[in-house]
Amino acid sequence: MNRVDLNADMGESHGPWKMGDDEALLNIITSANIACGFHAGDPDVMAKTMALAAENGVGIGAHPGFPDLQGFGRRNMKVPHDSLRNLVRYQLGAARGMAAAVGAQVRHLKLHGALANMCSADIDMARACYQGALDVDPDIIIMVLAVTKQEEAVRELGCKWVGEIFADRAYNDDGTLVDRALPGAVIHDPDIAGPRILNMVREGAIITESGKRLETSIDTICLHGDGPTAVQIAKSVRSCLIEGGIEVKKFQR
Amino acid sequence: MNRVDLNADMGESHGPWKMGDDEALLNIITSANIACGFHAGDPDVMAKTMALAAENGVGIGAHPGFPDLQGFGRRNMKVPHDSLRNLVRYQLGAARGMAAAVGAQVRHLKLHGALANMCSADIDMARACYQGALDVDPDIIIMVLAVTKQEEAVRELGCKWVGEIFADRAYNDDGTLVDRALPGAVIHDPDIAGPRILNMVREGAIITESGKRLETSIDTICLHGDGPTAVQIAKSVRSCLIEGGIEVKKFQR
Amino acid sequence: MNRVDLNADMGESHGPWKMGDDEALLNIITSANIACGFHAGDPDVMAKTMALAAENGVGIGAHPGFPDLQGFGRRNMKVPHDSLRNLVRYQLGAARGMAAAVGAQVRHLKLHGALANMCSADIDMARACYQGALDVDPDIIIMVLAVTKQEEAVRELGCKWVGEIFADRAYNDDGTLVDRALPGAVIHDPDIAGPRILNMVREGAIITESGKRLETSIDTICLHGDGPTAVQIAKSVRSCLIEGGIEVKKFQR
Amino acid sequence: MNRVDLNADMGESHGPWKMGDDEALLNIITSANIACGFHAGDPDVMAKTMALAAENGVGIGAHPGFPDLQGFGRRNMKVPHDSLRNLVRYQLGAARGMAAAVGAQVRHLKLHGALANMCSADIDMARACYQGALDVDPDIIIMVLAVTKQEEAVRELGCKWVGEIFADRAYNDDGTLVDRALPGAVIHDPDIAGPRILNMVREGAIITESGKRLETSIDTICLHGDGPTAVQIAKSVRSCLIEGGIEVKKFQR
Repeated sequence: MNRVDLNADMGESHGPWKMGDDEALLNIITSANIACGFHAGDPDVMAKTMALAAENGVGIGAHPGFPDLQGFGRRNMKVPHDSLRNLVRYQLGAARGMAAAVGAQVRHLKLHGALANMCSADIDMARACYQGALDVDPDIIIMVLAVTKQEEAVRELGCKWVGEIFADRAYNDDGTLVDRALPGAVIHDPDIAGPRILNMVREGAIITESGKRLETSIDTICLHGDGPTAVQIAKSVRSCLIEGGIEVKKFQR
Repeated sequence: MNRVDLNADMGESHGPWKMGDDEALLNIITSANIACGFHAGDPDVMAKTMALAAENGVGIGAHPGFPDLQGFGRRNMKVPHDSLRNLVRYQLGAARGMAAAVGAQVRHLKLHGALANMCSADIDMARACYQGALDVDPDIIIMVLAVTKQEEAVRELGCKWVGEIFADRAYNDDGTLVDRALPGAVIHDPDIAGPRILNMVREGAIITESGKRLETSIDTICLHGDGPTAVQIAKSVRSCLIEGGIEVKKFQR
Repeated sequence: MNRVDLNADMGESHGPWKMGDDEALLNIITSANIACGFHAGDPDVMAKTMALAAENGVGIGAHPGFPDLQGFGRRNMKVPHDSLRNLVRYQLGAARGMAAAVGAQVRHLKLHGALANMCSADIDMARACYQGALDVDPDIIIMVLAVTKQEEAVRELGCKWVGEIFADRAYNDDGTLVDRALPGAVIHDPDIAGPRILNMVREGAIITESGKRLETSIDTICLHGDGPTAVQIAKSVRSCLIEGGIEVKKFQR
Repeated sequence: MNRVDLNADMGESHGPWKMGDDEALLNIITSANIACGFHAGDPDVMAKTMALAAENGVGIGAHPGFPDLQGFGRRNMKVPHDSLRNLVRYQLGAARGMAAAVGAQVRHLKLHGALANMCSADIDMARACYQGALDVDPDIIIMVLAVTKQEEAVRELGCKWVGEIFADRAYNDDGTLVDRALPGAVIHDPDIAGPRILNMVREGAIITESGKRLETSIDTICLHGDGPTAVQIAKSVRSCLIEGGIEVKKFQR
């Protein structure tokens, strides 16, 4: 592959509370996953973030999560599949409305936090969520965690999708992430992160900690805007990719 | 005029709590104003209500309100105009997503509760809210309380709109509603409500308590689904209109 | 045992939405578990319900649940133990404030819905919740589902507690409830419910479906206010107990 | 007067979102107004903030606000007096529970944001709120904005109270604050703020912009933890007072 997209979560402020450095990220990424008000974001934050993304030519994605502000959508909830489907429909609809209002468009959808984690391991949950998105917009591009049940679900559904890997996380041989409690699980060094991702993109495969190759569709790299070295890692990944001859551009399907 | 629409608020349940008799109303009305989750409703309730409305050929409207479940959107809130605009965009977007997911479409928008009341008296607020709706969908039909600042706002905006009067409320000579505390303010008798509305529709005017004629566009009659005689009044209005030669049909613009 | 308490959940309305028939139950029960605003109830509903309970001489309990109105606290959430502890402290504190304001007092605490279910199977969760309650009031009486991890937790904590069984549910031999999907799991017939509970109270043991005796502390019987025969079952249980010589009175510890 | 208290709002984080520099303020102030979860704060934030305040010997106050996270309790809401009363009871109760759980005690209550502003101008609202607090704890000390309807309300109620002035705001001759839009309304210069407050405390009077003396009970000075010079102003006020021979100590009633 000679081309890749860079994505990050954005619009995670809420009311008076700020989160992340959206403006710094907008110069680095090509796709933004924008919170839809259930776990973060609110209508004002969404309007502002979407306008910023559109001005910067960054692709806009809806980033639905569980209805849990205090837990930031990071606490698992056991929600019936019908409700999951409706919860995704609602948040995607809201995001599409907000985007239309600023002259932009929602191109993709990526699940947030605990909802994403649970769907990585549970194909039925993933299918319910993605079906909800497709009910609203059959052309939406679903962004999935590569080599998980999320990917299985979109393959089954036959919809448009892109596969994502993390810029700063080590992988086990089965494609799951190395437990954060273990040494080396999270990559904090920008000098390591950049070349490592360039290598994976060139290979078209996740390279696990043990060196195993997991072939997959690496369409987009997940970057972060918080943490002490996050923006540095994001910049390093971007420049390594470009210097390595990879085009950094928002995905097309 | 020889034709009129009948509208009512619907989808006002929330989670385990039921409100109103949506199924009874669906046989009477031609347009439904469906709560969007901020003051009532939730994604599951919206999905169910919209599917029901669509099956019954009833026109679907978004019914946004203040973010205030406990107060049911009936408590005035002082919200900056930009936030009002975004709050309407968000709720209309969500409603459009939910409607699309059940193969239906949001045709109109009507403000709820305290938001509607405040906009009846404040043209700037009304303009902010309606502009938010038009930002999302320039073809949306705005349902306004006839002879109020709501009507002034849509005339100024030059958008599609329909005018509404209440089936069960007496009017003052300036077009405002008679205070609920006064005798005769609310009409509880179905035998009075029906002929009274037939008369106004024929006249193309609100007939006030004192007998004054306020010429206006009576495109739709607001009915209710709660209260001891509400469904009876709704039925009486419908049958009186039909017997009087008025076609009861969802509005077109 | 020649004495037993009857408890039911109350104050589960929210804003404009009514739930249950609190006034009917107040003549039957001796202890009320009052929702604290996270899964149901609100400050107005709490004030009204507590005043009613106090007037009727019914013991007042705090009934905390997960922060999930739409799901009525019935959806499992994975909440860190420290947060569980704080969530119980907060809701119990709020309940104590509301009770004090109407001249009453919170005597007991019972967990609601999914929080209760999870704590029935997970002693660490149960301990975190109950510790939170004891942090606020070391004399609070914890109402536990008999023969579950809830009971184990209070025994370990060495606090005041009472054991509860359900009036309308069949039990498995391990003390868990028969799955609702199975025939006979829920007792709908008042003529069966009353004598069955009288028998268990006399025996001081849960009698399982297979006839096994699970000895336990049956201090209180859980009744319901909703469902077609709920109030009838509640009345039948009460009158059977009284006719059988069991004193129906709020528990003391 | 030769003694004064310094207060600031604290515990205004929510879930993952941080606000203010509570730890810096705790070395400066003597009383903390702690958010109760309706406009800011959550049970975890409250537990942590109260424990910190208690460790630092800072007096703990409940700081209730409108139920409006997005608006941070700064948007006026028209809430019936009975509901206001219950809303204060609930939040004070919750705060008392959280405080008890960390071995501390709620000594005072101060209203937040729009609720405070509305009560400064409306004695009936103020009375409803304060009565709610006294219903829960008749010994609670109410912190009021000096020379406003808040002060009138506590004088009428005959309860314990302390009067507060702002460290960084200019006053009109009627005791209201100079409009933020006007030059000089907000004092940003620590070198001005300190001596100005020392003077007012010595005089036992607010000195208005025009130089008029408004005699009142200056028991506590309101400081802020946010804004570019807020902590500097707070430090300057504290050191000027101490150097001027005023004892900085938490109030007693």
